[in-house]
Amino acid sequence: MAGKVLIPINRPLLPASERLLPYLKRADEARYYTNYGQLEAELATRLAAHFGAEPGNLVLANSGTSAIIGAILAVAGRPAGKRRLCICPAYTFVATAVAAAACGYEPYFIDIDPVTWAADPGRLDQLPVIAEAGVVVAVAPYGRMVDVRAWNDFSGRHGVPVVIDAAGCFDSLDVAAIAQCSVPVAVSLHATKTFSTAEGGFVLCGSAEQARRVTRALNFGFFESRQSEGPSINGKLSEYHAAVGLAELDAWPSKRENFLRVARDYRAAAQLRGLENDLFSDCERASAYALYSAASPGHARRIALAFDENLIGSRLWYGLGLHRQPEFSACRHDSLAATDDLAARLIGLPLAVDMSRDDIGRVADVIAAA
Amino acid sequence: MAGKVLIPINRPLLPASERLLPYLKRADEARYYTNYGQLEAELATRLAAHFGAEPGNLVLANSGTSAIIGAILAVAGRPAGKRRLCICPAYTFVATAVAAAACGYEPYFIDIDPVTWAADPGRLDQLPVIAEAGVVVAVAPYGRMVDVRAWNDFSGRHGVPVVIDAAGCFDSLDVAAIAQCSVPVAVSLHATKTFSTAEGGFVLCGSAEQARRVTRALNFGFFESRQSEGPSINGKLSEYHAAVGLAELDAWPSKRENFLRVARDYRAAAQLRGLENDLFSDCERASAYALYSAASPGHARRIALAFDENLIGSRLWYGLGLHRQPEFSACRHDSLAATDDLAARLIGLPLAVDMSRDDIGRVADVIAAA
Repeated sequence: MAGKVLIPINRPLLPASERLLPYLKRADEARYYTNYGQLEAELATRLAAHFGAEPGNLVLANSGTSAIIGAILAVAGRPAGKRRLCICPAYTFVATAVAAAACGYEPYFIDIDPVTWAADPGRLDQLPVIAEAGVVVAVAPYGRMVDVRAWNDFSGRHGVPVVIDAAGCFDSLDVAAIAQCSVPVAVSLHATKTFSTAEGGFVLCGSAEQARRVTRALNFGFFESRQSEGPSINGKLSEYHAAVGLAELDAWPSKRENFLRVARDYRAAAQLRGLENDLFSDCERASAYALYSAASPGHARRIALAFDENLIGSRLWYGLGLHRQPEFSACRHDSLAATDDLAARLIGLPLAVDMSRDDIGRVADVIAAA
Repeated sequence: MAGKVLIPINRPLLPASERLLPYLKRADEARYYTNYGQLEAELATRLAAHFGAEPGNLVLANSGTSAIIGAILAVAGRPAGKRRLCICPAYTFVATAVAAAACGYEPYFIDIDPVTWAADPGRLDQLPVIAEAGVVVAVAPYGRMVDVRAWNDFSGRHGVPVVIDAAGCFDSLDVAAIAQCSVPVAVSLHATKTFSTAEGGFVLCGSAEQARRVTRALNFGFFESRQSEGPSINGKLSEYHAAVGLAELDAWPSKRENFLRVARDYRAAAQLRGLENDLFSDCERASAYALYSAASPGHARRIALAFDENLIGSRLWYGLGLHRQPEFSACRHDSLAATDDLAARLIGLPLAVDMSRDDIGRVADVIAAA
């Protein structure tokens, strides 16, 4: 463990346990604690209503990773024949590639657009390895949603299923587009995210039929029977985590406002110090990320060092890209110039829903001075 | 859903939520809800002490399935070269094969011994497909522990890693043998088990080094860094589930006694009706299973029908064997005569920690009359 940190990179705040009690008592009374209990059903229904989605189109999972796995298995199954690759951007958290590998696919890394930080479907039409792809996992980095319709068109053009890893996009989903597409979108509810069940996730689908396939993939291949009818894992969300989600949803409008307040404070602090072109905080949608784009890797290292000296947490959330992770370093990939350029420079800054304006000012001061 | 059932097949009783509160408040205070928090660490330490195991040798997981996956990835990794099979008995819950598939292995089903209901390592030495096996998953059926040393010897003889799926063996682990072997043992803490965290599991290892590999496999390949150093999933146990486990452990001696009381009542009820040779309940180790071995599949169907008519739950817990599951029906397998014979006859009977003697009598009456 690192030494004492004054401003941690991430300090989740989930509902106080007293607020879980009314929900947990219902599980106590039913003596039913997992395998799609009443709390899980209520959370799925209420979340779908929150998003304005059809109630049958949202499937909960026990983690964001499981959500990606469930989505991949639902639309692509396990690899068959020559289509053994999962094409995904190198610039993402390892969960993306871990999920692909758990489904049997070999990750193949593509580069990102330097402005959106996401892969661009328009640039992939000429990619030779599409013929070897069993699935494409597009990644919405840091809660920045990608163009679902563009990925849906890409999927149709190439006859390759696409899944969107929108781990941090709880508050930035394009629900209308998802409803019109056949591209399932996986969201994480991990403690580091804005809306959380501690560990958890969900998949939002364009149809109830696709959602049923996700459900089946997350419960041993079962659907309304104990016959295993397709590739699967155990990705069920327990009543305990569902209770956390329900209590979280009860207070979400206020939690959301607080995240937006933090983002506005970051923006103001950046403007005050002339950092506004390189400090990213989302003032329109709740985000767990504030990011600073240093001018160079050297500049980023100076900032990280200054953060360390001031006991301020920071993190390269996606490391230096998946191709630099030992487990995935042998995977094939495209030229990754944009990833290599960005990954070492884009610094994750401390963020918490109750982060004070003073602390935000301290973070900005350190950046400005580095 | 089935209609109203008077005696359900399984009716878990987990700690009342008030008993979780002292633990959950510690998570509230720490604002730390997953990723190896204090409650997770305490549960791992206390469980290891409970078993008399070295504290570093027990690794918690978010499900029994994840525990099997973590164990497989730790000792065998993903398939390499020609060794792509996972040899496992056909007579088990689908989680065994689902875990193997999630690690990239193709299940190959072997038969069981008709008396132990488990695969016998002594009979596998001549099995031709051992040369194609990347891993063997031995299964301890219904909480009946298997001979760890015999499997460890088998592993040594053939140079093939072995994992034991001891899902229901919380109270029947041979901890001394595990400590002397290199065969990790995966246990489920699912709600249907005696000791439960709702969803959860753990792996008990013979060494701290093996346990570290399991931990790494259950956390994105990370171990004390954010470098992914090996094959992995996200199998972390959250603080919420750890709190359930801690409260469960607080009251385990009494819960255990109650399971043994139910088993004794089943045995007495069987004796009273002359069923004692075919009704199995474990009076020495807490078990979530009472089982009746019908004389024939036809007899078993008559009993199941009589249970239905009397609104009593029953279940073929392992179905008709994994080779009869649609998802795994194309898998290669040995002759499965013993599995085919047993699977359709061995009926899971209702069991709950607070099941009344009267209800147990009703169950036995129905069997005796069928």
